[in-house]
Amino acid sequence: MVTIDISYAQRMQGLSGSAIRELFAFSAKPGVISFAGGNPGSFALPDEQVAQIASDLLRRDGKAILQYGQTEGYPPLRQSLPGYIRQTFGADVQEDQVLITTGSMQGLDLLLKALVNPGDAVLTESPAFLGALQAMNSYQANIVPVRSDDSGIDIAHLEEMMRRHSPKLLYIIPTFQNPTGCSLALDRRQQVAELAAKYRVVVAEDDPYHSLRYKGKHLPAIKAFDREGWVVLLGSFSKVVSPGLRVGFMAGDAHLLRRCGVCKQCTDVHTANLNQGIVDAYLRGGLLDPHISRICGQYAGLMDTMLQQLALTPRIRHFTRPEGGLFIFVHLEEGLQADQLFRSAVERGVAFVPGEHFYPEGGHHNTLRLNFSNADQAAILRGMEILSDCIKHMG
Amino acid sequence: MVTIDISYAQRMQGLSGSAIRELFAFSAKPGVISFAGGNPGSFALPDEQVAQIASDLLRRDGKAILQYGQTEGYPPLRQSLPGYIRQTFGADVQEDQVLITTGSMQGLDLLLKALVNPGDAVLTESPAFLGALQAMNSYQANIVPVRSDDSGIDIAHLEEMMRRHSPKLLYIIPTFQNPTGCSLALDRRQQVAELAAKYRVVVAEDDPYHSLRYKGKHLPAIKAFDREGWVVLLGSFSKVVSPGLRVGFMAGDAHLLRRCGVCKQCTDVHTANLNQGIVDAYLRGGLLDPHISRICGQYAGLMDTMLQQLALTPRIRHFTRPEGGLFIFVHLEEGLQADQLFRSAVERGVAFVPGEHFYPEGGHHNTLRLNFSNADQAAILRGMEILSDCIKHMG
Repeated sequence: MVTIDISYAQRMQGLSGSAIRELFAFSAKPGVISFAGGNPGSFALPDEQVAQIASDLLRRDGKAILQYGQTEGYPPLRQSLPGYIRQTFGADVQEDQVLITTGSMQGLDLLLKALVNPGDAVLTESPAFLGALQAMNSYQANIVPVRSDDSGIDIAHLEEMMRRHSPKLLYIIPTFQNPTGCSLALDRRQQVAELAAKYRVVVAEDDPYHSLRYKGKHLPAIKAFDREGWVVLLGSFSKVVSPGLRVGFMAGDAHLLRRCGVCKQCTDVHTANLNQGIVDAYLRGGLLDPHISRICGQYAGLMDTMLQQLALTPRIRHFTRPEGGLFIFVHLEEGLQADQLFRSAVERGVAFVPGEHFYPEGGHHNTLRLNFSNADQAAILRGMEILSDCIKHMG
Repeated sequence: MVTIDISYAQRMQGLSGSAIRELFAFSAKPGVISFAGGNPGSFALPDEQVAQIASDLLRRDGKAILQYGQTEGYPPLRQSLPGYIRQTFGADVQEDQVLITTGSMQGLDLLLKALVNPGDAVLTESPAFLGALQAMNSYQANIVPVRSDDSGIDIAHLEEMMRRHSPKLLYIIPTFQNPTGCSLALDRRQQVAELAAKYRVVVAEDDPYHSLRYKGKHLPAIKAFDREGWVVLLGSFSKVVSPGLRVGFMAGDAHLLRRCGVCKQCTDVHTANLNQGIVDAYLRGGLLDPHISRICGQYAGLMDTMLQQLALTPRIRHFTRPEGGLFIFVHLEEGLQADQLFRSAVERGVAFVPGEHFYPEGGHHNTLRLNFSNADQAAILRGMEILSDCIKHMG
C-alpha cells in the first residue's frame, strides 16, 4: 500500500479532536484513576436484567425485531415514550412528535443537518459539551458562546446573542450540565422557552442526566414551557440504562421531526430494533424507577466524597456543587494552569479533563472537569489526595 | 400548538422521497403481495439463534457490552472481520483498515461527509440504489450517472465520466445490484480498481448481497484488485443475519477510515456493542455459512419461480437473469408506463417499484423492479398472474 493523497471536504478542517482522544486513551489504561470520562459506573449497568429482557423479547417478537424497522422508531417504544416524557420531563407530546435516535448525539446531528448551512450561527452555553461542539463544527456552524453561571445560561446575554446573530439553533444542557454539573434555574427555563419563540430559534434541549438527581427537587424541562413548538427535547437512555445500547429520542414539532427523519433515513435508516425493544421493556415493565433509585444512591455517595475532598484541596477559587449528574467543575486560583496540573497528575496515575477544551472561545486555563461516576470511594479518596498534592506543588 | 415556520438548511431542498415512502407504506398493508421492498424473508431471520447468542453474550461480557464502546468498533468484531473479509471478498485488510458502521448506509454517509463539498461530482451506476441517491442529495453532490448493462457498469463510459467530472467518489454495487440484480463482470472489477487509481477517485464498493449467490461462481470484490487503497468496501450483515440489528463495516485505507471515524464520533458515537457482539458470534462460531446455505436454498427457489413466470408474461422487452441477490429488473415494451401498471396492480393487491425512481437522470418509464425474497411460492405465482393480467390489459 502506498499512501493515497485524498482531497477531503472543507468541513473536515474544523474536525480534529485528537488531543482529547489521546487524553481519553491514556485515562482508559489499567490502574489509572480516571476522573476524565463520563462513563456510568460498572455497577450501574444492568447486564443480567438486559440479558433476560433481550432473550424474552427475541423469543416473543424476534421476527419483527430482526427485520427492517421504521425510521421513526420501533412502534412499541414510540407508544410508550409520550407517557415517560410527561412523567419525567413534564412535557406533553404525542406519538408523532417523537423520533427515536441512535443515542441523543444523533438527535443533535439530525437537527444540525436539517437546519444549519455553513456559517449559520448556533448558540451554546460556555463551557459546553465537547461532542456537541464537534458536531457543530462538522456542519461548519458559526459557534456563538453564551455566558453561564451556577444557575445556567445567562438570560440577558442569551437574548443579546439571539438578537445580534439570528441563530438557527440554541444547544443547551439544562440539568447537571456537562461539564459544570449545574442546572438551569426554574425561572430561566421558562425564559429560554419564551426567547426561543420570540426570536424564532430552535432549541436543542439535551437532557441526558435529568433523572440522576441526588438532592433537591426535580425541575420540568424547558420543553414543558414550550407553547409554540420551538423546543426539541433530546433524551437518552445512556445514563439510566446503558450507553452501549445507543438509544435516545427527539421530542418536538412533528413537521421538524419528519424532516429529521428524512435525514436519518439516509444515515442509518433506523435505530436497531432490539435496542429499542430493550428500552421499551424498561418503560413498560416499571423497571426504570427502581434501577435509577439504586444507582442514584451510589452516585450520591461518590459525589459527596469528591465534594468533601475538594473542600480540603488548596488553591481552588471555586467549584460547582451539583445536585446530580456526573461532573464537578473546578476553577483553580487565577494563574494556575490545568494542563500543567494534568501532566503532573497523569504521571502519578490520575486523569481529568482540562477545562479549556470546553470553552468555544478558548482561555479559562485554570479550569478542570472532574467525573466521579466511574471510580469507587477508595479511588476517589486516593485520586483526590494525589490531585491535592499535585496542586500544592504547582509552580 | 401553532405551526412554526422553520428555515431549513439548503441541503433539505433535494430531499423528499415522499412518493417512495407512500409506495412502501402501501406495500406493507396486510394482504398485499409485495414485490416492492428489499426485506429478507421471515424464514431468513434467525430469531431463536440470536436470542440465545444475545443472552450468552450479555451474561459473559455484559458490563463491556453495555458500557460506552469505541468509535472504531467492538474489539472482538474488529479482530474477526479481516479473516471474514479475506474469505468472503478476497481482499486483504488489517484490523486498522476496518471501521464498524450502523448498517452499510452509514458507511456511504461517512464517506460523503468526509469527502464531498456541495457541487462535487459523485459517479453512480444508472439505475442505482435509491437510498444511496438520497444520501448523495443530502450532501448536495452533483450526481453523475454512468451507463450500465447486464455485466455491470460500462467501463468506457466510466472512464469518460471520471476524466470529464473529476469526481470525489464512485458509488457502485458490484454484485446482484439493486435494482437490476446484475453483477459486474470479473474483468470489469479489475478495470474499475485501475481507473480509480488512475483518476484518484475513491470507490464506495457496496456489496451487501455478495453471499446471496444461488448459481455461478463467487467473484472477488473490486477491493481485491485495489493496490493503492482507493477502494472502500462497504459490508453489511443486513442480508445475511438481520437488517434490524444495523451492523455493517467499512474496509479500506486506514487514514481515510480515521477521518470517517471522526465523523462517526459526532453522529452516533459508536455502533451498539450488543449488535456487534451478535455478529461477531456468527463469525467466530462458524454460524454464518450454514445459515447462508439454508436461506440461499429458499431464495433460489423463489427467484426461479419469478423468472419462470416472467418468461410467460406478455409485452416484456427484457428482464435480467440474476445469479443471486433479491431483485429482478424488467423492461416493458417501449411506450408502456410502469406507473400506470403500478396503479392497476395496486388496486388488485400487488406492489412493486416503478423503475424510473432508480434513474438519477429520469426517464425509463417502462421499467420496474421486482423483489422475490419477501413472499412465498404461492404469493409469487398469484402476484405474477395478476401482474401479467394487468400488463395484458394496459392501454
